[in-house]
Amino acid sequence: MNGAQALIRTLVDAGVDVCFANPGTSEMHFVAALDDVPDMRAVLTLFEGVATGAADGYARMAGRPAATLLHLGPGMGNGLANLHNARRARTPLVNVVGDHARSHKRLDAPLESDIDAVAGTVSGWVRRSLAPADVAADAADAVAAASAGTTATLVLPADVSWEDGAEVAAPVAVRPAPQVAPAVVEEIAAVLASGEAAVLFLGGDAMSEEGQLAAAQVTAGTGARLMSETFPPRAARGAGLPDLTRLPYPPEMAIAALAGTKHLVLAGAESPVHFFAYPGVPGTPVPDDCTVHVLSAPGEDGVAALRALADRAAPDAAPVLLEAERPELPTGPLDPRTMAAVIGALLPERAIVVDEALTSGVGLNELTSGCPRHDWLNLTGGAIGDGLPMALGAAVACPDRPVIGIQADGSAMYTISALWSYAREQLDVTTIVCDNGSYAILEHELQKVGAQSDGERARKLLDLGGPALDFVALATGMGVPATRATTAEELADQLRRALAEPGPHLIDAVLRG
Amino acid sequence: MNGAQALIRTLVDAGVDVCFANPGTSEMHFVAALDDVPDMRAVLTLFEGVATGAADGYARMAGRPAATLLHLGPGMGNGLANLHNARRARTPLVNVVGDHARSHKRLDAPLESDIDAVAGTVSGWVRRSLAPADVAADAADAVAAASAGTTATLVLPADVSWEDGAEVAAPVAVRPAPQVAPAVVEEIAAVLASGEAAVLFLGGDAMSEEGQLAAAQVTAGTGARLMSETFPPRAARGAGLPDLTRLPYPPEMAIAALAGTKHLVLAGAESPVHFFAYPGVPGTPVPDDCTVHVLSAPGEDGVAALRALADRAAPDAAPVLLEAERPELPTGPLDPRTMAAVIGALLPERAIVVDEALTSGVGLNELTSGCPRHDWLNLTGGAIGDGLPMALGAAVACPDRPVIGIQADGSAMYTISALWSYAREQLDVTTIVCDNGSYAILEHELQKVGAQSDGERARKLLDLGGPALDFVALATGMGVPATRATTAEELADQLRRALAEPGPHLIDAVLRG
Repeated sequence: MNGAQALIRTLVDAGVDVCFANPGTSEMHFVAALDDVPDMRAVLTLFEGVATGAADGYARMAGRPAATLLHLGPGMGNGLANLHNARRARTPLVNVVGDHARSHKRLDAPLESDIDAVAGTVSGWVRRSLAPADVAADAADAVAAASAGTTATLVLPADVSWEDGAEVAAPVAVRPAPQVAPAVVEEIAAVLASGEAAVLFLGGDAMSEEGQLAAAQVTAGTGARLMSETFPPRAARGAGLPDLTRLPYPPEMAIAALAGTKHLVLAGAESPVHFFAYPGVPGTPVPDDCTVHVLSAPGEDGVAALRALADRAAPDAAPVLLEAERPELPTGPLDPRTMAAVIGALLPERAIVVDEALTSGVGLNELTSGCPRHDWLNLTGGAIGDGLPMALGAAVACPDRPVIGIQADGSAMYTISALWSYAREQLDVTTIVCDNGSYAILEHELQKVGAQSDGERARKLLDLGGPALDFVALATGMGVPATRATTAEELADQLRRALAEPGPHLIDAVLRG
Repeated sequence: MNGAQALIRTLVDAGVDVCFANPGTSEMHFVAALDDVPDMRAVLTLFEGVATGAADGYARMAGRPAATLLHLGPGMGNGLANLHNARRARTPLVNVVGDHARSHKRLDAPLESDIDAVAGTVSGWVRRSLAPADVAADAADAVAAASAGTTATLVLPADVSWEDGAEVAAPVAVRPAPQVAPAVVEEIAAVLASGEAAVLFLGGDAMSEEGQLAAAQVTAGTGARLMSETFPPRAARGAGLPDLTRLPYPPEMAIAALAGTKHLVLAGAESPVHFFAYPGVPGTPVPDDCTVHVLSAPGEDGVAALRALADRAAPDAAPVLLEAERPELPTGPLDPRTMAAVIGALLPERAIVVDEALTSGVGLNELTSGCPRHDWLNLTGGAIGDGLPMALGAAVACPDRPVIGIQADGSAMYTISALWSYAREQLDVTTIVCDNGSYAILEHELQKVGAQSDGERARKLLDLGGPALDFVALATGMGVPATRATTAEELADQLRRALAEPGPHLIDAVLRG
């Protein structure tokens, strides 16, 4: 058995049976070996950033890693931005990065580059397989490392892949998430009993249904406020769950949201900081006189900690939960608010929403909060271009659930070829492009950073008109049926039809105002 | 004056007056400052890989660096593959990478990442500006460093950009290329006089008109063979220049091309190695008993060295030069050969050809060698997706010259949004997509690496059909007029019209067989 065959079989045995692939010459034996291991599903993408973003979306929904197959350092580079997002989301992910054969490495061939240095910036685990006899054990270690919530990158020299002498390795046991000590729960219970203004701040695993229900019991019994991080990787949402305010993105709104808080209790979340610094604004919304307490750090078992806290601090409290409620179908012009209302009115049960709406997402959370139960995936790391790929991965992970991508226009262009993979795999993904013809977020930011210019040249650099991007043409050019909506009625009609028909669809939602 | 203003003015004063930009929040003051420095031309791209590839193409044609404006580590990552290509081409290039404000850096905000580590893998010079008072001098140093033939990456914290206290810095003197010692020329002359089989192997600066003419004089007088590296960054070509054989890409052909050579004399080129290792094939085409001599290393003044060598070794020889000659316009089905003949028949004078045709480029060199004088840019570093962006940069550098991009379909999708920038800037770029519906190069490679599989699953991973990419729809969706050619006559007709009309055009050349 050659290295590639042993590698793929080991991955499958360890539960990694999907690979988002963008192969090149150095990965050809991996490609050939796919026919020997039919349990591995390979999904072709046209760009490595689609492969890495898809692996991110897959693992967020499947709860176990997908693999990517990347071509040397430049392939890793193309995938880097979405690996950054995966790192920030603590997504388990296994990269297999092909490299030159060991004998070729020292020749400084044109595609030679420092893969390990680049990989190290996004990976919690990096290893280079040195021989066919090692590669399977390396792969098993990679899966175990990834499962703890990180990207594991295995660099695979071409000859390690093609040489014989490899054997399949058994999966490596994955350590369960560490438990929070009872003393910590005790301490937090005391803080919440103090009567001082407290916020229970959720993120990561605490955003699951169980985590939220336990947290809502705590806040119902203690009077603490319930809030979540701004962009949790995955949030359970909908009727029957608590009304969970997200910390707002704009610094001034985030500061207002936490004003007066004396105790910030973190469950699965890091202490919040603003995405960016602004002149004269503090870097974090946490008040100076607020004490930050850690119930559970990211990677710890936050759900168990919240349950223990609920038992200890609010044993008899009944959580306040959202009633089933949808907005009315709006009529008239399409803007972010009416778009959100249409989505809220029609969101199907068990939908997976992939949200890279950015500025066009105003109202989206509020108007979907009482919808039937669904999951919501966010752009956790701030590197735009994760939305279309994540929807690809989520749809591969959950073929029986509808996936709805709500996608800003500017960031859609980063990884637009994801649409082709939707069509190739005939995935049930409905993409709504929030088409406002500009990098609207940057127009806000240009003012917010205090830049005084109203100049033509600065403005032109944030404008996506001239020429206008025709997303209907782009989608159909990649095999995805597409329509354009300019009113709320059109959007509702088109969304209904897209949801009723299997396979991918794109709706270009032309937002004005 | 704030840091951003001083930075941009310093760049302009040092001769860097074009910036390919993909800004985000941390770059907003740079954007605002563009209105204060109208001599800086900012070209918006929709993806950082387009910005970096455009800067590569710009500098190859302009002979001086362009700047890029990239958004933190993920933006650098998106631009990394084409920075790899630029590094391999020794292209002068100045990256300005925005980063968090200094106070924000320690907060580990969502977009925090190790920019410096990533930058180091592609840059000969990396610096982080520490204060507004430093930034202009840093920028001047960056331009000087880049001018020696490397990527210089300046990391620009947002507050260094927005704070006052900066002043414009004077340009730093750029060292001329080192001269080759007369003793080296003497030694090479003796080698060529030995009568043993020799190849004069050109690359880098030796591919200029002057370099080639001097080299052709040397080979005419000494009997050495003339050859060039496989993918020189920029080659002068056409009637009146020598018939310069490129070392073939396939290892077996490269080995055959150099078989029997006793002396390989390098001028501006590195000693050749194969792009990839293959089982049982040596890593380099240079015969074991061949001695490699360096007339001029990359970065040295190869043109002067070749002139000195011509004076010393072949003072009276007349170089053999190509006659003006074009292929007949072919008729009938479109395949790589008839496509090449159409291009050879119609290539306009002073054209800039950007060649990422890959497998579809067979015959292209031969059938254009007697065309009117033109320049040819190659994918030097092997990271696909450089073609469309390089054409953008070349067209910005040379607005009075027609640019023709010959672009493989698979790699076109890596940076397809470059088309939008063509339309926005109304550049005179004609893109011919070599549409064969597959990663044809990988189909060859799958066999070449000795992978035995004829399996369905492996083959499917190299197939771009299902769905077919509609490049006419993609181009028109980004504002570029496009047509489809399925016969040689149609291609000729469409190419003629595209060349006659200003502005961008795309021709989807459907190649069969």
